[in-house]
Amino acid sequence: MALEQRRRAPSFTPPQALALGFALMIFTGTILLALPIAHEPGQQLTLVDALFMATSAVCVTGLAVVDVATTFSTFGEVVLMLLVQAGGLGIMSLSTMMFLVTGRRIGLQERLMMQEALGSFSIAGVVKTTRSIITTTLIVEAVGAALLTLRFLAYYPPGQALYFGVFHAITAFNNAGFDLTSQSLRIFNRDPFILLVVAGLILLGGIGFIVMQDVWRQRRWERFALQTKIVLVVTGGLLVAGTLLILALEYGNPATLGPLPFPDKFFNALFTSVTFRTAGFESISMGRMAYAALLVAIVLMYIGGSPGGTGGGIRTTTFAVIILAVRATVRGTEEIQVMGRRLPRELLDRAIAIAAMAMAIIVVVGGLLLVTESHVVSDPGNPVTIADVLFEGTSAFSTVGLTTGVTPHLSIPGRLLIALTMYIGRIGPLTAAVALAQRRRERAHIEYPEERVMIG
Amino acid sequence: MALEQRRRAPSFTPPQALALGFALMIFTGTILLALPIAHEPGQQLTLVDALFMATSAVCVTGLAVVDVATTFSTFGEVVLMLLVQAGGLGIMSLSTMMFLVTGRRIGLQERLMMQEALGSFSIAGVVKTTRSIITTTLIVEAVGAALLTLRFLAYYPPGQALYFGVFHAITAFNNAGFDLTSQSLRIFNRDPFILLVVAGLILLGGIGFIVMQDVWRQRRWERFALQTKIVLVVTGGLLVAGTLLILALEYGNPATLGPLPFPDKFFNALFTSVTFRTAGFESISMGRMAYAALLVAIVLMYIGGSPGGTGGGIRTTTFAVIILAVRATVRGTEEIQVMGRRLPRELLDRAIAIAAMAMAIIVVVGGLLLVTESHVVSDPGNPVTIADVLFEGTSAFSTVGLTTGVTPHLSIPGRLLIALTMYIGRIGPLTAAVALAQRRRERAHIEYPEERVMIG
Ligand SMILES: [K+]
Ligand SMILES: [K+]
Repeated sequence: MALEQRRRAPSFTPPQALALGFALMIFTGTILLALPIAHEPGQQLTLVDALFMATSAVCVTGLAVVDVATTFSTFGEVVLMLLVQAGGLGIMSLSTMMFLVTGRRIGLQERLMMQEALGSFSIAGVVKTTRSIITTTLIVEAVGAALLTLRFLAYYPPGQALYFGVFHAITAFNNAGFDLTSQSLRIFNRDPFILLVVAGLILLGGIGFIVMQDVWRQRRWERFALQTKIVLVVTGGLLVAGTLLILALEYGNPATLGPLPFPDKFFNALFTSVTFRTAGFESISMGRMAYAALLVAIVLMYIGGSPGGTGGGIRTTTFAVIILAVRATVRGTEEIQVMGRRLPRELLDRAIAIAAMAMAIIVVVGGLLLVTESHVVSDPGNPVTIADVLFEGTSAFSTVGLTTGVTPHLSIPGRLLIALTMYIGRIGPLTAAVALAQRRRERAHIEYPEERVMIG
Repeated sequence: MALEQRRRAPSFTPPQALALGFALMIFTGTILLALPIAHEPGQQLTLVDALFMATSAVCVTGLAVVDVATTFSTFGEVVLMLLVQAGGLGIMSLSTMMFLVTGRRIGLQERLMMQEALGSFSIAGVVKTTRSIITTTLIVEAVGAALLTLRFLAYYPPGQALYFGVFHAITAFNNAGFDLTSQSLRIFNRDPFILLVVAGLILLGGIGFIVMQDVWRQRRWERFALQTKIVLVVTGGLLVAGTLLILALEYGNPATLGPLPFPDKFFNALFTSVTFRTAGFESISMGRMAYAALLVAIVLMYIGGSPGGTGGGIRTTTFAVIILAVRATVRGTEEIQVMGRRLPRELLDRAIAIAAMAMAIIVVVGGLLLVTESHVVSDPGNPVTIADVLFEGTSAFSTVGLTTGVTPHLSIPGRLLIALTMYIGRIGPLTAAVALAQRRRERAHIEYPEERVMIG
């Protein structure tokens, strides 16, 4: 059936193209990372692990089943960095570039596809937008790399400082928490400069290009688009709430904030709050946080970044639309109103679909991990609990890249499951479902009579 | 402000009356259970614990901070049983009865209030419906009590068998998992007759009066209301899925199904699946189930019973409406369609509000428990994990009454928190929020211009 349809209509729908594009990038990445030249001498990488690392890079997640610095050669690390960059810019910008380079005109469908992926509103502006995306990315990453390199000179010889600066600026801006230190940023948890530069890169990447552009151009709050206002309010609110909660819950924990003097306690709480928004770097150990802080982490990771940015999760706007809809229902108003504007109903439909599917995926993935990792679940020395698997599932789905320590010990089915979860999380559960269900959209529309049922 | 408004308009809105009615019943129950005559000789009950037990009874939950059989005298047990019966029939039926007894006419507002609580569709039929509810309840409970008494004769002397039969028939039908055995139904886990009778009572109580009546009157599937069809399909589906999952996940667990021969394995899995739908009885120990089974439990408890029944949770219909809305979005249809019918949009609004608020309440309650119970959280001998507090929070919110063992060890703030959660869960988060936000409903309607934002 699928084959027959493909013969008739060789072009894919936008969601299908998006899904296939990412799959293709992962496939390419897997092959490159599996090459012996990509590994340090003496290091082996199974195909499953190459697939896992390529998926994690392309989906800008940062979960790792092997240590990047000790496993990969410089070639392998550069491949990883380029996969992160490609994933972050997005298959859509890349394909636009290819169109520009090869001089082909962009068809309406491709423009629509990009529009969907990048979240831009006007079709005409897509090409221009893609150019700005690339320019912005390169400028921000260059500034970040320069700042990090300057600081890294205090720790490393110049060549390594530059290499580390570039690598971590790229992974930070693209919200892909890979590191070359073998212990994330925990070794820099007394260095606020590094924490703040990385947090800034993460936030800029996660906030989305449209919002960055709008802020850059309009400069005044009252001129910002609703999109920009909502993203800024939700991002700011979650940042403050997250910082305060982590500070309160981890303040005396001897394994995390406990031993740090106050200003560092604050900077690490702030950094951790930022990293939960799907960045994936650690300045304090996730595996040793209190359960209450893990619960906060799971909620923040679930919400994630903003649309059009490099973060994952259900997105800040999805979260906002649901909150606003609940408020409207409680108040008894039919319309969803915010900041003097009315939101279209279909936004709520999409928001519900995304939030509900995300929830279902995380719970199912968590449950499956309890089964695939049952050898560790029952290990009294290092048990895997519901907190661990929900954290892992959310981290993968929202392409966060943090782990309480489960990832490197995953079984092969567990690795494949997490890789699939990252992939679905990255292309979005709704896009994935629509890509699969595409044929059903063509069914004839039938008008049914209305009937009520009781709710709640 | 509130006082001033009350002077102007002494009548309450339906949600406010519902909330106050339940609060009043809990208050009365607390006083009765705190009386010395309610306790076994030598037993003490703090006021907080009397409040907890009264709330648990009125909200037909079954969570207990003290053991019912050894703490309460026969008077206390009968009070508990009557509170359960009163809670189950609902403040709405009770007030209808009072109106009938005192011969007062029922005003439109009261009828609407009852309609909301009982879920009946026609205003005219409310009085008649209330009568049927009481009759149905008494008949089903009487049959259940007779069957249980007959079987209990094999274990207890006749007087006790009758008393146990009546008590457990009432708590089972009202989905309030109180027991007089001090170990729930675990001592009967090799007695399929008792398990099946109790499961039958739970299911009938949880399925809702409207559905029972519709099935009883129409008898044929095609004549059933959409409400009935959805409730039966979802209830049946969750029952089958729950039984199979519990059977698979607990099959070899030496602390639960492991030691039982096959038919008993099946009956206990079935019973456990039923009890998760907010009944609160145990035939196998919750505290010793595998994490994966606890995750299944949390999901089933969250969904809960059906509207108009004695169960809690977000309700089967809420769950169904969200699933159907997601399906519609994926398929690209604007209307929510099911079984040849179209569902009104405002049903989805209510469903989202209920599901999102329930989720938020459970996560917040779980997080707060991790803080209030931090003395046990950090106890290496008997640690309280995220699984435990999410289970406890869901059990309280959905008025389930099951626990992994946390309840009797709760701190005083923890007890008050769980009591409040049961109360909000019973009156419903949307009703609670509307009751609090009532004044805002009167705001002038302002037409705002529409603006889109990006989602997901
Ligand atoms: K990430
Ligand atoms: K219950």
